Amino acid sequence: MPHQYEKDGATIYVQSFATIRREADLARFTPEEEVVVVRMIHAAGMVELAPHVVFSPGMAIAARAALEAGAPILCDAKMVSEGITRARLPAKNAVICTLQDPSVPALAAEIGNTRSAAALELWRPHLAGAVVAIGNAPTALFHLLNMLEDETCPRPAAIIGCPVGFIGAAESKEALIAAPPVPSVIVRGRLGGSAITVAAVNALASRKE
Amino acid sequence: MPHQYEKDGATIYVQSFATIRREADLARFTPEEEVVVVRMIHAAGMVELAPHVVFSPGMAIAARAALEAGAPILCDAKMVSEGITRARLPAKNAVICTLQDPSVPALAAEIGNTRSAAALELWRPHLAGAVVAIGNAPTALFHLLNMLEDETCPRPAAIIGCPVGFIGAAESKEALIAAPPVPSVIVRGRLGGSAITVAAVNALASRKE
Repeated sequence: MPHQYEKDGATIYVQSFATIRREADLARFTPEEEVVVVRMIHAAGMVELAPHVVFSPGMAIAARAALEAGAPILCDAKMVSEGITRARLPAKNAVICTLQDPSVPALAAEIGNTRSAAALELWRPHLAGAVVAIGNAPTALFHLLNMLEDETCPRPAAIIGCPVGFIGAAESKEALIAAPPVPSVIVRGRLGGSAITVAAVNALASRKE
Repeated sequence: MPHQYEKDGATIYVQSFATIRREADLARFTPEEEVVVVRMIHAAGMVELAPHVVFSPGMAIAARAALEAGAPILCDAKMVSEGITRARLPAKNAVICTLQDPSVPALAAEIGNTRSAAALELWRPHLAGAVVAIGNAPTALFHLLNMLEDETCPRPAAIIGCPVGFIGAAESKEALIAAPPVPSVIVRGRLGGSAITVAAVNALASRKE
């Protein structure tokens, strides 16, 4: 006997978001932040994510304005860049991931860092006014913070800093949110990852739920 | 002052996996399963994932053998297909995602289902002996189960069934593991997603940690 289940994509979205809003404690978020957190929770399948999401003031508004103005989106991993829903982008924004650039392995060896961190050196021409989406590598977020300590380094408009994992993830995100060089959002602790990061970008890109 | 952090990728992996094995309760898994669960936990940033992972008997061995024999990997979403580390594949296995095929929207309308489910109709020529990796859509997993109720439908070698979310995810995975048509692994409940699914594929593809 065939399994019966909800087959209408729009209905599934509506019911999912309603479930999240019923179960998650979202009271501390601004309306601009709330829609972002709802989508992050949706991607994670965890209402328990809510208390770990921290925005610096004005981040959601700054990121949305940047995207509407055509900002490129700089991604640390291909799972992030490939997950972004192109139809939601307000200005045919460029989605850039430099990790597979053939120069990256040599660059990583040269600077003594991971390929994920070295790939950010190739972001420099695109960095001014960009929206950064780091969903994989703590070393990428740490390297970005160190790049931005140089005041001559171009400033992105906003940073989604959600690397995941057991070594450096929590520390890199705390370093970002303790002194955000530009408006930022993080997920505290070990949680994070490409799906949550993509969800934040997709929410900031369009008001459509 | 620049942030100090571990910059050696191999060291980060070793320390991450050691942390997971120290903290997670993995005693109920076979050695073949354990390396898969460790990578799934690594991708999720959650040792709390362990109790929710359920293998049907022989799944890890069947999936590994299929991949070594050259099985294609059928993915429900591009974040899954793009996340799989090609260098880990033992037989230059084909990685297939049919979701962006131009015929899918019309097919979805015709069968009255989501695009994610309709895309699986295009898997049929590749399905015999394949490794299935569903990391996004509950409707895809439900549709696969219904396809496999037809005994003339070709059988995959193994199913990684890890759709995520609030509507149908838990139910589709329980349906799979209650009566697995072929050896399968799930994450119980709402948790799942592309990163966890990719991690399972990457672990089954190579014994290298």
